[in-house]
Amino acid sequence: MYHMRTPVASIAITRIDNGSATVADDILVTEEPLEIRLGHGPVDDRKEFRLSVTMRTPGNDEELTLGFLFTEGLIADPTHVVRVVPCENVKAEERGNVVRAELHPSVIVDPAKWQRNFYTTSSCGVCGKSSIDAVHAQCSRPLGTAPKIDHALITSLPDRMRAGQTVFKHTGGIHAAALFNEMGELLILREDVGRHNAVDKVIGACLAQPDNRQPFPGQRAGATDNRILLVSGRAGFELVQKCIVAAIPVMAAVGAPSSLAVQLARDSGLLLIGFLRGDRFNVYSGSL
Amino acid sequence: MYHMRTPVASIAITRIDNGSATVADDILVTEEPLEIRLGHGPVDDRKEFRLSVTMRTPGNDEELTLGFLFTEGLIADPTHVVRVVPCENVKAEERGNVVRAELHPSVIVDPAKWQRNFYTTSSCGVCGKSSIDAVHAQCSRPLGTAPKIDHALITSLPDRMRAGQTVFKHTGGIHAAALFNEMGELLILREDVGRHNAVDKVIGACLAQPDNRQPFPGQRAGATDNRILLVSGRAGFELVQKCIVAAIPVMAAVGAPSSLAVQLARDSGLLLIGFLRGDRFNVYSGSL
Repeated sequence: MYHMRTPVASIAITRIDNGSATVADDILVTEEPLEIRLGHGPVDDRKEFRLSVTMRTPGNDEELTLGFLFTEGLIADPTHVVRVVPCENVKAEERGNVVRAELHPSVIVDPAKWQRNFYTTSSCGVCGKSSIDAVHAQCSRPLGTAPKIDHALITSLPDRMRAGQTVFKHTGGIHAAALFNEMGELLILREDVGRHNAVDKVIGACLAQPDNRQPFPGQRAGATDNRILLVSGRAGFELVQKCIVAAIPVMAAVGAPSSLAVQLARDSGLLLIGFLRGDRFNVYSGSL
Repeated sequence: MYHMRTPVASIAITRIDNGSATVADDILVTEEPLEIRLGHGPVDDRKEFRLSVTMRTPGNDEELTLGFLFTEGLIADPTHVVRVVPCENVKAEERGNVVRAELHPSVIVDPAKWQRNFYTTSSCGVCGKSSIDAVHAQCSRPLGTAPKIDHALITSLPDRMRAGQTVFKHTGGIHAAALFNEMGELLILREDVGRHNAVDKVIGACLAQPDNRQPFPGQRAGATDNRILLVSGRAGFELVQKCIVAAIPVMAAVGAPSSLAVQLARDSGLLLIGFLRGDRFNVYSGSL
């Protein structure tokens, strides 16, 4: 049995308003560790590699895992993962917090390579330019042309995302990422305590769709071409990287982008929009 | 010569307001990679260990490094780091993005142990309780009693922090962390594109003060006892962990805490305040 963990939790708190205190019930967003293990074939602890532990909001863990492995360059192609399954051979209290990505037989388990991915920059130096070069090296094809979208469509996106959010309404404390098509229709919406997790869940959901599994996401019409990714917070380098690796040609953020995020977007031909609030937004890279 | 990198960068963008477009200058917060290396004695590349690369806003990199090593449990005591210096033996474009923490001769460089810290939970399981236990194991002493602070003092803190912020005013896209004493006086304020970095910079600045170096931060009156840490965003597990490891007894956040952050705070005796806005706030752990 897969132990389902819930995305929200209820607790009693003290609310202070203009000096007066009342005890009230409050709903918090759940944050729990997720361990990702990698291996081949049926479950075998001895040969499994424990890749990472990430704090996340439970839910869509398989998508999170697939999206994370792909956008971080740990697998070059989503078909390198056969399936992601919750691990059953763990302690009772860990149920639902450990998943296993079963790798394609052709993929070699190389802990040294994966650790290097997180740690060092031995081959590429430590500066903005080399960070951008590393993203380009990870992408097997350039971004498609951004779809033609008008101002009104762009300014309508945050409300469309908010209307679909469930956890935020209750907790006020969660990030969201949403994928839209060029008509502004909401395709995929995910929420998580971590902004990067919300994006990985959206991209993982996209990759997991049967049509996108072969031969490569985005090579088929309709996979990520003509898509728009909206994120609830700021647009840092890491989020822009994920968007580009997933071949999504437009990214919009409610908050500000960073210097390196804009450089990467301009270098990659990404249409990058920031400070998307009400009738206003800024275009940091590309043009409408 | 230490290559100074600036915390903000200016670029030309297109601003859209209610359908009309104008070209304007915009100021972005800088995001650049920082590599942390560990070693003994004078610089020697062969024996250096490249610990990690983190995206951060340049400035106070030595404090960031000291705070990060301490709050993540990579060193048990700040005296284990003799000094942090920018690396000179790097390529020109990397200048200012690589620092070296010189370890005390008694500290053994153990890559396997440090890598484990990031990766696996081999000893402690993957669930909320074990995450909390791991933080407690990392703390060499319990938190002190929270100072007596009244409602008006708490609600005044966000304005005091904002008044001290410089980069946010220009970019609107940066996180801040601030340390106050029990009278509400601002002691240390740091800004960074990463919320965890802003907190590590504050704690690193605190640890770097000569009085706090011996024998252990917080064991001396005035180090972190009677202090209040304010963060600009949400309070996730990682930020609460850093606060507790640094023995700061009160943490306030402008945004929401997560479930695990509240559990950790309650288990540790931390006074945790969230949704601190205007005259209102919530007390999630401890009491005033």
